[in-house]
Amino acid sequence: MQATIALLPGDGIGPEVVAEGVEVLKAVAERYGHSFSFSEGLIGGCAIDAHGTALPEATVEICQAADAVLLGAVGGPKWDDPKAKVRPEQGLLGIRKTLGLYANLRPVAVTPALASRSPLRPDLVEGVDMLVVRELTGGIYFGEKTSFYIRPDEEQAVDTCVYTTSEIERVVRRACELARGRRGKVTSVDKANVLETSRLWRRVASRVVAEEFPDIQLEHILVDACAMHLLRRPADFDVIVTENMFGDILTDEASMLAGSLGLLPSASLGKGKAGLYEPIHGSAPDIAGKGVANPLATILSVALLLRYSLGLNAEAEAVEKAVYATIDAGILTGDLAPAGQARSTKEVGAAVLERLG
Amino acid sequence: MQATIALLPGDGIGPEVVAEGVEVLKAVAERYGHSFSFSEGLIGGCAIDAHGTALPEATVEICQAADAVLLGAVGGPKWDDPKAKVRPEQGLLGIRKTLGLYANLRPVAVTPALASRSPLRPDLVEGVDMLVVRELTGGIYFGEKTSFYIRPDEEQAVDTCVYTTSEIERVVRRACELARGRRGKVTSVDKANVLETSRLWRRVASRVVAEEFPDIQLEHILVDACAMHLLRRPADFDVIVTENMFGDILTDEASMLAGSLGLLPSASLGKGKAGLYEPIHGSAPDIAGKGVANPLATILSVALLLRYSLGLNAEAEAVEKAVYATIDAGILTGDLAPAGQARSTKEVGAAVLERLG
Ligand SMILES: CC(C)[C@H](C(=O)O)[C@@H](O)C(=O)O
Ligand SMILES: CC(C)[C@H](C(=O)O)[C@@H](O)C(=O)O
Repeated sequence: MQATIALLPGDGIGPEVVAEGVEVLKAVAERYGHSFSFSEGLIGGCAIDAHGTALPEATVEICQAADAVLLGAVGGPKWDDPKAKVRPEQGLLGIRKTLGLYANLRPVAVTPALASRSPLRPDLVEGVDMLVVRELTGGIYFGEKTSFYIRPDEEQAVDTCVYTTSEIERVVRRACELARGRRGKVTSVDKANVLETSRLWRRVASRVVAEEFPDIQLEHILVDACAMHLLRRPADFDVIVTENMFGDILTDEASMLAGSLGLLPSASLGKGKAGLYEPIHGSAPDIAGKGVANPLATILSVALLLRYSLGLNAEAEAVEKAVYATIDAGILTGDLAPAGQARSTKEVGAAVLERLG
Repeated sequence: MQATIALLPGDGIGPEVVAEGVEVLKAVAERYGHSFSFSEGLIGGCAIDAHGTALPEATVEICQAADAVLLGAVGGPKWDDPKAKVRPEQGLLGIRKTLGLYANLRPVAVTPALASRSPLRPDLVEGVDMLVVRELTGGIYFGEKTSFYIRPDEEQAVDTCVYTTSEIERVVRRACELARGRRGKVTSVDKANVLETSRLWRRVASRVVAEEFPDIQLEHILVDACAMHLLRRPADFDVIVTENMFGDILTDEASMLAGSLGLLPSASLGKGKAGLYEPIHGSAPDIAGKGVANPLATILSVALLLRYSLGLNAEAEAVEKAVYATIDAGILTGDLAPAGQARSTKEVGAAVLERLG
């Protein structure tokens, strides 16, 4: 098949890990007879430096013209001033919203080889295999925000959290569809005992499942309880679906189950097949440019890209297998390797390519 | 000293655990020559059943007349209908707001005897001793809420998150004062890269510490990062201060470090000395009335009451020591005891009294 992939390397270690992702895409194309072409755009801090905005119009056009987007990471101390009008995250939030990527998928699976790196007891994380589906274009992230002085000494800031029936329906549907290909269980997370948006969330989730997914087992839990149960009974979860802010917090908590952020990919999907794929780790400015960043989360994001945007399931699985074989062979960057045995970003990338055949 | 203590046993296991707390208060009074009188009020589900409201006016009056309030828990399946106009939590939220209890203190310390019960690896939880200070009367909990149909099929729900300078100042000050009696470190948690209220939070926290607490070491972290760091480096935290919703999620996550909710007390404080004290666990309807609930979180809440509202530090420490001695002696309810060795609520309460002398 033919496909165009937009690359947004971003800041910090972004360019280094995206480079390894591209090598994997090229190898897949060659091995399976596909033709992938690449276009590159600026996003985040580097875009602010070049164009004064975190999301230049040209970048949006490149993404809209592509079949899928592979993103590295955005941000760094250089652009961290809280009073700044332009901030790197605006690029990320802007591209999610502009492309309508309402469902953010974050799988967390604990590989036996790395169970001992989890902060949780090995017996608890054994068998953990969950998929968090986070609503990504609504809620308090995108509601109206204001800040003003109500008296000379007294400032008031306001954020608004908004959800509508259709916004909840589509992401719950996506979660249920994904659960059908897994263990058939969906946990919907809200704060229905306090929030109006959560009461709507719960009502809509119940109705969608009752009307359209009678085969799915749905449970509702409160966000505070979920933060506990992720630690107490992590292996019980199959698919978790939740709103934007809760999803942000719970996915970062859940990511710790796997021991390292360096392994966790994500996919952000919208209405059609197009999607944006990125590792869930940040730009790690402290190790940027040193060639030591872990490329595996980006390579696993490439696997998700092949699966969800290009429909290339065999290719996706081959990439995932190659990654796990690399881990099992102990070829790891410093975040995962025992002291003195760390390999470079390029060495780990090459080891995956080798195992891809 | 003389003091009046309002008792709000509430629902589920609430009455059982509050009864043990009262025994401890009586023993302290006798041993140290104080005179405590008790008044009792309804709150939550039982108040709905009796008066049609979760927070009857009489209960508010009893609390306002008291030096401190000891609360059990509210809620249960009987009052769980999401469409109900009156819900048990309204009692809890209402009393917090009415009494102006803006600072919710939740200490999490891992006792060596129970480190093995934590879902985290024992080496990670060793030495964990943190105090989370959660803002309790502002934010999205108390902002305007609406829900309406924008089209026949499309409902829209809105929650509003509001913070003002003075609301942030007072809770940050309280956190800093508490940190002075500890390791002098405050971690302020927000989502300043997305929320306007968080940007205000961060600015105010920085200013308060710079102007009034130059001896305090302040760090700011994002809420998603905090959810990770609580698992990755829990022993690093001293005092954490955060807004209402983030505090709700993070304290429940942090509570898991200690292995059981059954041990964790909380204090909610306002301007004066009065405060509300409650275990952080819920009403546990599944075990209510069986005499098996763990009373230790309530008894430790009594210790906080003695310390913060009555200024009786020696008495507070004596209660805490008696609780830890009981744990070390292995006299535990079913949530903590090895199979077959569980003691009843009353037996555990009696063991604490015995160790109080
Ligand atoms: C950078 C930030 C705005 C972003 C978010 O909160 O969504 C990040 O934490 C994430 O989860 O992708
Ligand atoms: C019962 C509920 C409203 C409450 C809250 O969210 O504050 C509870 O979870 C708590 O933390 O005390």
